[in-house]
Amino acid sequence: MNDIKKGIQYAFQTSNNMTLAMSGSGHTAMECAVFNIVEPGESVLVAINGIWGERVAEIAERMGMKLIIKIMPAHCFLEIHPYLLRPVLFFLTHGESSAGLVHPMDGVGDICHKYNCLLLVDSVASLGAAPILMDQQNIDILYTGSQKALNAPPGTAPVSFSERACHKMFNRKTKPVSYLLDMTHLSNYWGNDGKPERIYHHTGPVSGFFALRESLAIIAEMGLENSWSHHTEIAEYLWKGLEDLGLKLFIKDKDLRLPSVTTIAIPEGYDWKELLAYIMKHHRIEFTGGLGPSVGMVLRIGLMGYNCNKANAAMVLAALEDALKQCRKSKA
Amino acid sequence: MNDIKKGIQYAFQTSNNMTLAMSGSGHTAMECAVFNIVEPGESVLVAINGIWGERVAEIAERMGMKLIIKIMPAHCFLEIHPYLLRPVLFFLTHGESSAGLVHPMDGVGDICHKYNCLLLVDSVASLGAAPILMDQQNIDILYTGSQKALNAPPGTAPVSFSERACHKMFNRKTKPVSYLLDMTHLSNYWGNDGKPERIYHHTGPVSGFFALRESLAIIAEMGLENSWSHHTEIAEYLWKGLEDLGLKLFIKDKDLRLPSVTTIAIPEGYDWKELLAYIMKHHRIEFTGGLGPSVGMVLRIGLMGYNCNKANAAMVLAALEDALKQCRKSKA
Repeated sequence: MNDIKKGIQYAFQTSNNMTLAMSGSGHTAMECAVFNIVEPGESVLVAINGIWGERVAEIAERMGMKLIIKIMPAHCFLEIHPYLLRPVLFFLTHGESSAGLVHPMDGVGDICHKYNCLLLVDSVASLGAAPILMDQQNIDILYTGSQKALNAPPGTAPVSFSERACHKMFNRKTKPVSYLLDMTHLSNYWGNDGKPERIYHHTGPVSGFFALRESLAIIAEMGLENSWSHHTEIAEYLWKGLEDLGLKLFIKDKDLRLPSVTTIAIPEGYDWKELLAYIMKHHRIEFTGGLGPSVGMVLRIGLMGYNCNKANAAMVLAALEDALKQCRKSKA
Repeated sequence: MNDIKKGIQYAFQTSNNMTLAMSGSGHTAMECAVFNIVEPGESVLVAINGIWGERVAEIAERMGMKLIIKIMPAHCFLEIHPYLLRPVLFFLTHGESSAGLVHPMDGVGDICHKYNCLLLVDSVASLGAAPILMDQQNIDILYTGSQKALNAPPGTAPVSFSERACHKMFNRKTKPVSYLLDMTHLSNYWGNDGKPERIYHHTGPVSGFFALRESLAIIAEMGLENSWSHHTEIAEYLWKGLEDLGLKLFIKDKDLRLPSVTTIAIPEGYDWKELLAYIMKHHRIEFTGGLGPSVGMVLRIGLMGYNCNKANAAMVLAALEDALKQCRKSKA
């Protein structure tokens, strides 16, 4: 567990003591952050740039929080106005896998702190694929999943809390609604609370923790910068290939594209479900459609971690080229 | 997932359609049941016969439920009086691992249903080791963990809901506070809601599910009755050996002893921590002390699933015999 903590500190680029892995998926870390940081009646600001913001808005509403939703177009930078209901937490997705968007992070933390608001960031789809620097970018709570660019099996989720976030969550008036996700217990379980003894709280997914430890060791050996540039290189090869096929990428600005998940605008004259079914049947590759708000708008290609290499990108391009020919023919 | 569902139906002896595995530990299933069944302001009755009842009481209090706690001595059978605050849910632990107790189940469901109350049972430590028959015993919600007598790695938790329980949880006025544990989504994820399409909700612990599937297949091949009688046989061998060493078992009535976890009253003149440390150091066996309310009262020995065999029981007895000699000496 101590090795995992160190590995996450490196992957997140943070020196936060309150760094651990959740026993669950990225969604567990998402609920854990909201449940522990915010008390009922407080306000939360959620940036909705795809499905993950929708989720956090739903969680906050279920908890009886006052919710301010800000719909954010993909290319829009953040502006927090001094709202009448001052939010205690701002949620932003770094790697929006439903949109294929990587959201710029610089300056966001500073604006949040100016208004005494904590910054919660989802990096499930982006960590290891696109740069994110927790301490330097003043992110208060950051989480990711084990099963994306980190390559471990699903079921564990790295998360880290800044001192500012700890101060808020350990000085609340009410207990978090979930005992399972209560950071008072989890911080003791992970030996982060300074007490000599760790006390049983729940049975963690032990095999999953061993796998996560190894995956964090691999990314540390490779180096974050190398992992980022590798993902960018393969993504750029894929994007060029897609454009050569006459396809349009959903995110126009290259700097805002998520290297690990590429979204293609559905080409005119095609049924997207037919394209996916054709590729699955004839090439045995699983493309997906959109997710949440992007359903019916995009096709999505995931190339991350172990799966991210030129051979796979070329195979995907060949399959798509064939599908574009065959599925058009079948319409004629 | 369909195989897992069938395997759980066999292990639980139920034909409930709403049968699935949680993406988490037994505690996740516990919170899921309470979060989905009970609405804020409703009453819950909790039998506290060890640590698990304490947990459920804590969860219910955090959710703003009215709580009625009934402290139950180990040998006491259930009596529900027509309380002023009629509980909608009664929680009882079948295999109380902190006490080493297996609680009788016959008749409990009938009394609950007479008062229009649902019966929630924790069988984490007992399933596969001691008989429990969900349908026959009128249990409305039953859960267990993957890592006890089922032998799979920790991180998944079988759970099943009766039609009565489904009626209550799918006709509630408010949404459950947790999106992660919302059974509306989970029942769709597991294909139990009758809809043709399963919709993404979270990323399940896929490797854990494969392991659980195999462990359920193994217990089905062995047969539940054989698994129960095997655990009983080894437990009786252990109990006799312990009594031959002059030790007293914490649960006096043999019929109320949990075969998978044996509790020994701490012998007079010994420091229990010293005993555990000695056995760990000299025999490399991890005994544990009590858990929650039984800390300082008992030593605990777990023999379950793969680990449950005569050779292990004999090894444990030899280690304990040595420790009893040596640790007394060191006191002299």
